[in-house]
Amino acid sequence: MQSIYSIITKKRDGHKLKTEDIQYFIDGVVQGWLPDYQAAALLMAMFIKGLDEEETALLTSVMLHSGEIIRFPKANYLRVDKHSTGGVGDKVSLILTPLVAACDVQVPMLSGRGLGHTGGTLDKLESIPGFTTALSPIKMEQMLADIGCFMAGQTEQVAPADRKLYALRDVTATVESIPLITASILAKKLAEGADAFVFDVKTGDGAFMETPDEAKKLAKALVKGCQSLNFPARALITSMDQPLGQTIGNSLEVMETINALKGEGAPDLMEVTYELATQMLLLSGKYNDIKAISTLLHEKISDGSALNIFAKLITAQGGEPEIIHDHRHLPLATRVALLKAEVTGFVSAFKTKEIGWFTVWLGAGRIKKEDSINPAVGLIIHKKLGDLVHRDEVIAEIHLDNRTEPNDALSKLRNMIIIDDKKPKHHKLIIERIIG
Amino acid sequence: MQSIYSIITKKRDGHKLKTEDIQYFIDGVVQGWLPDYQAAALLMAMFIKGLDEEETALLTSVMLHSGEIIRFPKANYLRVDKHSTGGVGDKVSLILTPLVAACDVQVPMLSGRGLGHTGGTLDKLESIPGFTTALSPIKMEQMLADIGCFMAGQTEQVAPADRKLYALRDVTATVESIPLITASILAKKLAEGADAFVFDVKTGDGAFMETPDEAKKLAKALVKGCQSLNFPARALITSMDQPLGQTIGNSLEVMETINALKGEGAPDLMEVTYELATQMLLLSGKYNDIKAISTLLHEKISDGSALNIFAKLITAQGGEPEIIHDHRHLPLATRVALLKAEVTGFVSAFKTKEIGWFTVWLGAGRIKKEDSINPAVGLIIHKKLGDLVHRDEVIAEIHLDNRTEPNDALSKLRNMIIIDDKKPKHHKLIIERIIG
Repeated sequence: MQSIYSIITKKRDGHKLKTEDIQYFIDGVVQGWLPDYQAAALLMAMFIKGLDEEETALLTSVMLHSGEIIRFPKANYLRVDKHSTGGVGDKVSLILTPLVAACDVQVPMLSGRGLGHTGGTLDKLESIPGFTTALSPIKMEQMLADIGCFMAGQTEQVAPADRKLYALRDVTATVESIPLITASILAKKLAEGADAFVFDVKTGDGAFMETPDEAKKLAKALVKGCQSLNFPARALITSMDQPLGQTIGNSLEVMETINALKGEGAPDLMEVTYELATQMLLLSGKYNDIKAISTLLHEKISDGSALNIFAKLITAQGGEPEIIHDHRHLPLATRVALLKAEVTGFVSAFKTKEIGWFTVWLGAGRIKKEDSINPAVGLIIHKKLGDLVHRDEVIAEIHLDNRTEPNDALSKLRNMIIIDDKKPKHHKLIIERIIG
Repeated sequence: MQSIYSIITKKRDGHKLKTEDIQYFIDGVVQGWLPDYQAAALLMAMFIKGLDEEETALLTSVMLHSGEIIRFPKANYLRVDKHSTGGVGDKVSLILTPLVAACDVQVPMLSGRGLGHTGGTLDKLESIPGFTTALSPIKMEQMLADIGCFMAGQTEQVAPADRKLYALRDVTATVESIPLITASILAKKLAEGADAFVFDVKTGDGAFMETPDEAKKLAKALVKGCQSLNFPARALITSMDQPLGQTIGNSLEVMETINALKGEGAPDLMEVTYELATQMLLLSGKYNDIKAISTLLHEKISDGSALNIFAKLITAQGGEPEIIHDHRHLPLATRVALLKAEVTGFVSAFKTKEIGWFTVWLGAGRIKKEDSINPAVGLIIHKKLGDLVHRDEVIAEIHLDNRTEPNDALSKLRNMIIIDDKKPKHHKLIIERIIG
């Protein structure tokens, strides 16, 4: 006879759980008959004793099947989605989606909202007037056929087990477990109609996985988790030791996206975007020559076809496509405070996580789930790690609302960007590729 | 700022908890504001990562102070209580209490009810018509002054934190943890007015700690836990590879107690009783010569003074003292089934835990807390490990009620007592003494 007590005991003592154990646990969570205290005890035992690859794949599969699964009609090539573990200034999804679609590989992009100090793709998109991220499966399918991509939010019906478990993990100190994170990400991702996945696992001060070692473990677990359920997957480990690109904040990041699609993207932002796009195109099965891919991607930017798809995507999702031509159609802050260097020197460090929280404090993100955000506020950072700055030169612009006292904001931000005599050593952006 | 999240994280990662962490946790449990799922996560982290001696002592102390603490006026010598971790046929408390009191060392004995397959002192005493185990502190004090002992149940006001935590541990697979067991036992024991403690930690098939190693760990933790809170303590590790003495079941064990106090106790029962009594008398500070103690204990049995105190205790607690002279004043079963040997051979093993559960099934114990018990039912076992039995000789008597089919009971019990050609090797009863 199955009993939750014996399942807890098994994992507590470091033994391996079987399919029926995991099924029983998740059934109890979804159907509501499993008391939270027993789920909490099991989660803590899983956290401390771990889950092996097979258990992680099982947990993923059972959570995946706890809810709705979107499947689109078969396409000529694999549809590829990208998932980032979250960063500061990470607007890559917005550029990548139309860029890969412009290469005739379909991208069903399902994203989330800001979490903690990191921004969320949905929040960024919703700064576009009229834009909706709530799409029906029919609408998604139609957009894939028409323009090769969409960008939407997850429905409530996807992986309900994960939603309940995540809420419990959040209050029982069982979040930061590689197998639990892996199952949580994959149970949602694999339900979304993509055939293959590229993961951008961020590491560094501004990431959830602060060390490359942890990031590598998570990247491998994500790739293996997909593969064991027959979804091709790859992962990159990329640095989040400084904000990506030049902007943080919802409207400002959409502005930067448009600039990037016009061929004026910041080098670090474009490096990550091109690398992720390359992996997606390789996974799709349509391309296999890396040099040809590189040429193609640059071409799709320079000839405007990626931008054109972004405009079509905005129109299809109810947004105002005029933003492409005129930033002033986006909600913009009326007050800007300029942070100037007090000394001459090199930018030696960004306190990236603090900068993320700083933009939340400005109003660009949420402290509580119910908080509303202000799409207009945020930062434009003109300098990157290693850049020389002169005394009185503008390092960053703070875009403020009326609640915020400019001097207060400036003195906070000043402590998060470190200027030093010595030029810091070269900073590697793409740290590792996990092919599987 | 204190937060339960940070306390769970600390223990999850194997760090040591501080006084304020444990105080915050127990406050939350007792005051009811700590959600069960957070308590469950912390208990599982404590179970897996452990608590060191200092943390165990802190947890004990905080749980102890979560409720009422009984303290009696100072006596000439230390008052000593005995605690057994629970066994099958273990009626030692009933003999020991009047025996030690007869040696002019006070025994404030607070006991529990049957748990799982093991019997409980309170249930045994309550088979005496009229006997009450619910005594007020005033009554307890008066009995100590008048006859040197009492035998009572714990009040609800003692260590409420333990009651709540135990209920949660029971459903989250976090019971069998040496530090948690230690804190749970001591938080109750130390609240009960005794100055020093002797623990009888049972090991073997019929005990909760099945291996001597586990038993030794628990014994050491109990002794150290007492000592670190300035209560002198000792422990014995004794075998529970066969039922202790000859009877199991409430009335039957009271009968055997009276026989033992009349000098007709089974050798194994008396060996454990004398050994525990010796340790109690040594701890009291009144005696220090082991040989003299041995002489004294035998004298207090043979001259009837221990029996006399037992009679007075029964009278003081409202019971019928006539049971001393005539067993028929106890509730007795009207039906007895005799288990006879099918072959000639040696008694080579008792399935002691199964025998414990068998007597629960007969009605001598409870499956659920609310179950009522039948004091009359139980077993008299005429043979011990290593005894020779002849074909058709009576091995045991099953005392039944009307619900139970004798042949059904006999066929169950037959499988729990193993007869073999080979005489088993000698069986050590007192396995180890832990002096501290």
